[in-house]
Amino acid sequence: MAAARGGDEGTKRLKLYADMMSQPSRAVTIFCRLNDLPVDVAPVYIHRGDTKGAAYRAINPLGKVPMLEDPWVAGGADGDAGSGLRLPESAAIMSYLSYRFSDSVAEHWYPRVDSVHRARVDAALHWYQGNIRAGAMRVSFHKVVAQRLGLQGDERVAQDGLNTLKLALSALESYWLAGGSRPFMTGGAPCVADLLCACELEQLRMLQPQAHGLSMRQILAPYAAVRAWQLRLRAACEPHYDDVHAVLMKAVAAAAKQAEAAAPLAKL
Amino acid sequence: MAAARGGDEGTKRLKLYADMMSQPSRAVTIFCRLNDLPVDVAPVYIHRGDTKGAAYRAINPLGKVPMLEDPWVAGGADGDAGSGLRLPESAAIMSYLSYRFSDSVAEHWYPRVDSVHRARVDAALHWYQGNIRAGAMRVSFHKVVAQRLGLQGDERVAQDGLNTLKLALSALESYWLAGGSRPFMTGGAPCVADLLCACELEQLRMLQPQAHGLSMRQILAPYAAVRAWQLRLRAACEPHYDDVHAVLMKAVAAAAKQAEAAAPLAKL
Repeated sequence: MAAARGGDEGTKRLKLYADMMSQPSRAVTIFCRLNDLPVDVAPVYIHRGDTKGAAYRAINPLGKVPMLEDPWVAGGADGDAGSGLRLPESAAIMSYLSYRFSDSVAEHWYPRVDSVHRARVDAALHWYQGNIRAGAMRVSFHKVVAQRLGLQGDERVAQDGLNTLKLALSALESYWLAGGSRPFMTGGAPCVADLLCACELEQLRMLQPQAHGLSMRQILAPYAAVRAWQLRLRAACEPHYDDVHAVLMKAVAAAAKQAEAAAPLAKL
Repeated sequence: MAAARGGDEGTKRLKLYADMMSQPSRAVTIFCRLNDLPVDVAPVYIHRGDTKGAAYRAINPLGKVPMLEDPWVAGGADGDAGSGLRLPESAAIMSYLSYRFSDSVAEHWYPRVDSVHRARVDAALHWYQGNIRAGAMRVSFHKVVAQRLGLQGDERVAQDGLNTLKLALSALESYWLAGGSRPFMTGGAPCVADLLCACELEQLRMLQPQAHGLSMRQILAPYAAVRAWQLRLRAACEPHYDDVHAVLMKAVAAAAKQAEAAAPLAKL
């Protein structure tokens, strides 16, 4: 049952728990800004242990970001009655916001009217999970992020992730982007799956050739349509795309400096 | 643009390319039978190389099952015009069918009216991808399926999958099933995410303690609410659940017999 929505709707804001170092957090944040949604970002810092802490676990027992809090509706049939809706999973959050603010969010981001186009976007979202996300996330996590969190990365798992990622990039190139003849994954305009895939791939910028034996540039080299699509998507999402990626870019610059200092001979 | 639907709608059938040894293929097949949908299964056999072959690749370049073919609609804005809709990804297929045959498919499977409940189901579907599927599939693939396909399984990747699976089962137990107080993942009746999770876990029956050092029973032992939910879901889906799993159960029986023959001393 939805709560009554009064004339003060304009002041009723939603909350997105997010960490700009998290790929899906960035996608949802860009989506909210692009569509001028009444959503405030509540910063959560994974590297400080926030998502594992009791305070955040009380809000989201899954301990992940992003999570959306919509205090203006009941939590669904058997959901979080009393606290409003607390919704995990970036793709579900963007679909929900597209229906919740259907006047603000253009149909191409997540189609509400055209059920066949919506099915294509849903397929792209689920494909992203098992392919781009399953591949790139394991590469960036086991090669870079694990160490930053004081954990041990596993080289074999990173290698398996890289194999998954290469197959995914090949399918993104030839199937979803039709070799470059389809501008975005499901048509002539970007959808939420484009945003999730692009933000996931950005994380690969953390890879330093000196330290990790590979780089984003090397990984993407064989996929011209993917590289053109990255530029196209970024342009379609400015200035929010660069704004939201500023924290990552700062970390990338720091990692590059560190890698250079550790291997000065490689420059000679 | 949807094609005109005439009075002969009753004879217009859709096609599902599926392999009953594939976890998501089974979920979609059960879903179609439970809801009495006009969908015919076109068998595809992964172990014979069908999904890698040119004939199937011409239909589905992603080379995966299941895939739905709906010849009665155009393929969407920029999609497969001419051939109708060809839709990959099991979760997207079930959502699409729920809208396509909304008179036949009960709201609880995939909510079309209640947008908050739909958001919960979408969240459960995406969570399944990154957790239950990402965990269990890598365990069953690297421990059992790879060998059956003449490939080399990787023990470290299987171990990483097992770690992911244990965290996923813990979250299924405590978060989605609320320790057993919520009968199904998003409420009092099953949704498409319950079906996908359950069919994914069934694949773990292939594990033989003698050959693989672990079994489905051992993996699920700590999770009482999950085990009760498995029985509840199966009961809610009979006779289709057992019918559709018959091929897997035959393979499980053969694997058990083989493991027993290979290690007779373990029985003494």
